[in-house]
Amino acid sequence: MLMTKLIAEFVGTMILIYLGDGVCANCTLTKSKGQNSGWIVITAGWAFAVGIPAYIFGGVSGAHFNPALTIALAVIGKFPASEVFPYICAQMLGAFAGAVLVWLSYLPHWEQTEDKAAKLGIFCTAPAIRNLPANFITEFLGTATLVFGILGIGIQHTAAGFGTLFVTFIIWALGLSAGGPTGYAINPARDLGPRIAHAVLPIAGKGDSDWSYALIPVLGPIAGGIVGALVFTLIF
Amino acid sequence: MLMTKLIAEFVGTMILIYLGDGVCANCTLTKSKGQNSGWIVITAGWAFAVGIPAYIFGGVSGAHFNPALTIALAVIGKFPASEVFPYICAQMLGAFAGAVLVWLSYLPHWEQTEDKAAKLGIFCTAPAIRNLPANFITEFLGTATLVFGILGIGIQHTAAGFGTLFVTFIIWALGLSAGGPTGYAINPARDLGPRIAHAVLPIAGKGDSDWSYALIPVLGPIAGGIVGALVFTLIF
Amino acid sequence: MLMTKLIAEFVGTMILIYLGDGVCANCTLTKSKGQNSGWIVITAGWAFAVGIPAYIFGGVSGAHFNPALTIALAVIGKFPASEVFPYICAQMLGAFAGAVLVWLSYLPHWEQTEDKAAKLGIFCTAPAIRNLPANFITEFLGTATLVFGILGIGIQHTAAGFGTLFVTFIIWALGLSAGGPTGYAINPARDLGPRIAHAVLPIAGKGDSDWSYALIPVLGPIAGGIVGALVFTLIF
Amino acid sequence: MLMTKLIAEFVGTMILIYLGDGVCANCTLTKSKGQNSGWIVITAGWAFAVGIPAYIFGGVSGAHFNPALTIALAVIGKFPASEVFPYICAQMLGAFAGAVLVWLSYLPHWEQTEDKAAKLGIFCTAPAIRNLPANFITEFLGTATLVFGILGIGIQHTAAGFGTLFVTFIIWALGLSAGGPTGYAINPARDLGPRIAHAVLPIAGKGDSDWSYALIPVLGPIAGGIVGALVFTLIF
Repeated sequence: MLMTKLIAEFVGTMILIYLGDGVCANCTLTKSKGQNSGWIVITAGWAFAVGIPAYIFGGVSGAHFNPALTIALAVIGKFPASEVFPYICAQMLGAFAGAVLVWLSYLPHWEQTEDKAAKLGIFCTAPAIRNLPANFITEFLGTATLVFGILGIGIQHTAAGFGTLFVTFIIWALGLSAGGPTGYAINPARDLGPRIAHAVLPIAGKGDSDWSYALIPVLGPIAGGIVGALVFTLIF
Repeated sequence: MLMTKLIAEFVGTMILIYLGDGVCANCTLTKSKGQNSGWIVITAGWAFAVGIPAYIFGGVSGAHFNPALTIALAVIGKFPASEVFPYICAQMLGAFAGAVLVWLSYLPHWEQTEDKAAKLGIFCTAPAIRNLPANFITEFLGTATLVFGILGIGIQHTAAGFGTLFVTFIIWALGLSAGGPTGYAINPARDLGPRIAHAVLPIAGKGDSDWSYALIPVLGPIAGGIVGALVFTLIF
Repeated sequence: MLMTKLIAEFVGTMILIYLGDGVCANCTLTKSKGQNSGWIVITAGWAFAVGIPAYIFGGVSGAHFNPALTIALAVIGKFPASEVFPYICAQMLGAFAGAVLVWLSYLPHWEQTEDKAAKLGIFCTAPAIRNLPANFITEFLGTATLVFGILGIGIQHTAAGFGTLFVTFIIWALGLSAGGPTGYAINPARDLGPRIAHAVLPIAGKGDSDWSYALIPVLGPIAGGIVGALVFTLIF
Repeated sequence: MLMTKLIAEFVGTMILIYLGDGVCANCTLTKSKGQNSGWIVITAGWAFAVGIPAYIFGGVSGAHFNPALTIALAVIGKFPASEVFPYICAQMLGAFAGAVLVWLSYLPHWEQTEDKAAKLGIFCTAPAIRNLPANFITEFLGTATLVFGILGIGIQHTAAGFGTLFVTFIIWALGLSAGGPTGYAINPARDLGPRIAHAVLPIAGKGDSDWSYALIPVLGPIAGGIVGALVFTLIF
């Protein structure tokens, strides 16, 4: 039973990153047909990247795909603490696998792209202005809103499909509205899994994996998610 | 019971402004990843900014988040007059709090942005062509359509989720179609709360808060909302 | 009873044109905040312009807002022939009224806009390449798809809200995919009503109303709508 | 009974290509009103191009419109093998007919457009970087995700309309995220049918039909679809 849920988290997170990092590849890589197609494309891509596997796997594993959500749910007693670590492992492995699929899907484009930072930016986030405390706040607020929103959406008594639709909208909204300073990781697995993939894959002409920033999109989302969940329990 | 509703109006309006003013910050501030990403981003951002808290809080407080709607509902007898003032207070405080979150979320970007009018434009609206009677008409017509639409959508007997979805669409539509001349406040709290926040927050390199225009996005929406509600009662 | 339906057709078509011609004004007029914001804005604007009043008035009048649809439904026996003429009158008056609202909403922008053809293009369609038989075919095919689609969507047994959602999508789709050559009138009232408004309103610096083209977006949609409805009856 | 389903597949695929190739025509052809309107327009156009006929014909034929899906469903025993060939014929004929409608709909624009490759690109896909094994992988991964997603969406027990909505989203997502290298055929009929139409229609100033690439968007989707379906049976 746990194994079924872990497979769902693995495959769901893999699809999330295949689609999410994929839209970044499409917008960034030289000669890609969607190059420079702008923020509406990036944010729509990430919204569907979350919404589609959430719709498919919601009834199996809860469709977390995000350690910040898993930890926050455990903190407020809505998820068994014993399953937190296996869930996070499945999410990290899925995110890594999704990044491999993006690398394969755009295979001839890597060597034709000069910009090393752009190539890294397909896999993981980087701040527009490097200021670690401020970057932490941005990720904290975005993930607090995400987790509060998911919990608030989840308790509505309309058709279940609307829940997933509005979760899709919240991802879209956070990208549109809160994504400007840091690229909205709002999910440690989404950032760290592909960053590891960037480090180990033989990507043509890649640069370093910017490990000095790697903790921010892990710690900011985890802290923000916990606070968002606690605020939810205060209100509802 | 009223306190629960006021908390919902406060938190909902805070999320509305965090997301709504947030998309303006993303499109405007120097070095933000969504800078200059255009009207589709602005209008989608505001649509979700209203739709998401409306979905979460609709069953608690009715999800007004807008004094023009609260007053209009009271005028046609669909909302208790005694709760109008507390609702408006909660909405104004929530809008102020949301503006603070936007300021924090984009913290390192304010000092890197030269344009003072652009910074003000993140918090509140300004007309493209300053002509107060004409600007009043634009806000009047937009809010009349908004309130008429919300009431008309609200009486449909489909799944409740569709109501919120079409309210999301009406915000999107008003931005796309009626937002050009004044930036579509269509909500006194959305404009005045963040304008006050702009005035009192220590925003790096800010200019004045354009108080000479501040009444238009208050009076136009209130007048338009009342007329929209009255037209609704004439037809339905 | 008929009067209620006619009021719904009048108000619904007025909202349709207020939002539809409004998005054209926003994208076209000098200094408007959405100027030159592109085809995604135009087509999203028109999609919501139809979808929102369709959701509100669908249960009252059937939400035609379009003489081509009204005539086509009458031809296949799904609408009483005796109500065709009053429906079309209500639609034409509503379209005219909506155009007046757009003129008012963008009042200070007309005199600041030089391009006379652009101002006309806010009210009614013009072909990209003037070739009346080809323009007729484009409008014919678009409206045939529209009416076939509306009928096909209408017989699905899912929640009623989905029908309106997919009708919204079909308007969006026709703009994206079939709107390039003629600007997709696909509705005689949408084109002729605002064209008359353009002719009679005191619009600052307006040119002529291009009556030599005015029959194409009337005849093409009517012919296409009838054929689309007949194909529907052959298949379903 | 089979004939009804084949008519549905024919008409549905015709609408799919009328709208899908239509959005490419709009974005590409000289003087078209949507020229150069970008990747969000292309991908939204294709999403609705699939979603609308899927909503209309889902209950009749299953709304495959795609030989890769038909074959994959037959491989996992969810579709009768005896109907595979007739379905594919109907899909191919529908795709051809849809391409004819696009040619007619944009009739005056072909001779005004110089770029022969652009004209071919309206009918069928071409890789951004020609590398047949890599192009195969891209189509393989996209179609595997498509078929896995359709099957996963199809087993959810929410209102049927949500299934079609999320299938619309998956088409949108694959365009946004996986469409960059090859233009996401992910459907042999979508590519081969219009390519044949390009070869036989008297399109003004057309070039060759690039037959050297034609097998990739047939074989990649068929192989990917089968693997996607098999992975689905392993998990669910």
